[in-house]
Amino acid sequence: MKKIYSLQNKEIKFLIKNYRNKNSISEFIVEGIQEFKMAIKGNFFPKKIFICQKIFYKYKSNMNINIIKLYYSIIFFISIKIFKKLAYRENSGGIIALFKEKFIKNKLKNETITDNSLILILDGIEKPGNIGAILRTSDSAGIHLIILCNMKTYIYNSNVIRSSLGSVFTTKIFIEKMESIFDWLKKNKVKIILTGFYNHKKEKNLYKIKLNYSKLAIIFGSENKGISNFWFKKTETIITIPMFGNVDSLNVSNAISIIIYEIIRQKNFSII
Amino acid sequence: MKKIYSLQNKEIKFLIKNYRNKNSISEFIVEGIQEFKMAIKGNFFPKKIFICQKIFYKYKSNMNINIIKLYYSIIFFISIKIFKKLAYRENSGGIIALFKEKFIKNKLKNETITDNSLILILDGIEKPGNIGAILRTSDSAGIHLIILCNMKTYIYNSNVIRSSLGSVFTTKIFIEKMESIFDWLKKNKVKIILTGFYNHKKEKNLYKIKLNYSKLAIIFGSENKGISNFWFKKTETIITIPMFGNVDSLNVSNAISIIIYEIIRQKNFSII
Repeated sequence: MKKIYSLQNKEIKFLIKNYRNKNSISEFIVEGIQEFKMAIKGNFFPKKIFICQKIFYKYKSNMNINIIKLYYSIIFFISIKIFKKLAYRENSGGIIALFKEKFIKNKLKNETITDNSLILILDGIEKPGNIGAILRTSDSAGIHLIILCNMKTYIYNSNVIRSSLGSVFTTKIFIEKMESIFDWLKKNKVKIILTGFYNHKKEKNLYKIKLNYSKLAIIFGSENKGISNFWFKKTETIITIPMFGNVDSLNVSNAISIIIYEIIRQKNFSII
Repeated sequence: MKKIYSLQNKEIKFLIKNYRNKNSISEFIVEGIQEFKMAIKGNFFPKKIFICQKIFYKYKSNMNINIIKLYYSIIFFISIKIFKKLAYRENSGGIIALFKEKFIKNKLKNETITDNSLILILDGIEKPGNIGAILRTSDSAGIHLIILCNMKTYIYNSNVIRSSLGSVFTTKIFIEKMESIFDWLKKNKVKIILTGFYNHKKEKNLYKIKLNYSKLAIIFGSENKGISNFWFKKTETIITIPMFGNVDSLNVSNAISIIIYEIIRQKNFSII
């Protein structure tokens, strides 16, 4: 263990520099005790851990620094001043860690699928807060697999981590090209259903369609553009949520929550 | 009409000053063509309208400046430079307006209620983005009335307006004390149901309870603290959403969406 009290320390300077520009490196920052625990639970490896002991002990979590020490060698103790410079949030428990990314791109083809699987496909969803909320609801609903395509947002963005309550680490996630996803779904005989409002003749009311398929993939489009044309050419079924008001669309995480839980209801909670 | 090209103009200085501190005045800012239209639809009165013509015409909305001129006398044309100083968003259509607040506090007692009414009560929900998303879903679901208590967030906050897609203006909303809400609900014979996870013996699974009451009020608590104790003392029924994952709670707007739409389903879409 090392103690760091200067903002000029090279570890700290590295962290500050790379915190704002994560695309070029293969590590990402996790902030907060809950989020740290979820990353460990998801088998992510923390390369460096920075702990501000004053804040850490005040937080009274059930996490023990001595246990962290047993498993992970590179721990730095930092001052409150440095912690405040590094942290986005004040009340997250005094821990910031640099984790190694997992390779989740173009790995879908090796994935097997069992009966009674529910798969969520997110096509181009951009806002980190939405992605995080979707992951949080998906975790709660026991979704087996989430596949992202046309991805413009960094999946380990701090807002995704926070708004997912760390479930971004414990959920099975892949980032893929649309063509590879479609081939994989076909190969595995997965029923594909699209969602959204396109005034399309194939659209059906969510509550007037059978959704309890054994292997089902539901596709959701981006906040502004909806689902890519690719999927419309390949798929027959589109479901819509009935709407009775002045607005013509729902927040994407709300729409996904409504649809996922209707599937859960139809499956009689036998999803997991 | 007046044309303004200087940031030192007193109208502009007033707007900038009050945009950031809305508590002391009885007006609020609406930005964007869609949001402006929704405010007009909700019978809010625009005291002053600021239009950047260059942006307004480029946006190609179906809103006509000549029609605006017929109804509202105080219109200012502003330069792009001033617009960019005033606007939070770039692509909202070149219009910013100062609207007069409506009085929605302590007005519930005069409100009547009919059969087949669904009422949403939000107890202390704080994040503008959540409040907006809840209003958006509530509009979509045809909720008749939203009552806010323990309100810490300004209801016409720009993020509430934006994330509600302006439905904050077209929805019937009251801000009340808990005691007044309870008395009003009792007087009108409204069934009250609480929501959330409190490990309480009264809790029932959302999908195993009848929810199609003719007059029903659903109460949701804040992001961090949940529902106030007041309601637990007064109410028998608590519903929870079944959860199967690692996280122990849902984003509040997602939870509300799931519950509202299950009620809609049970009511067989006869809600409006």
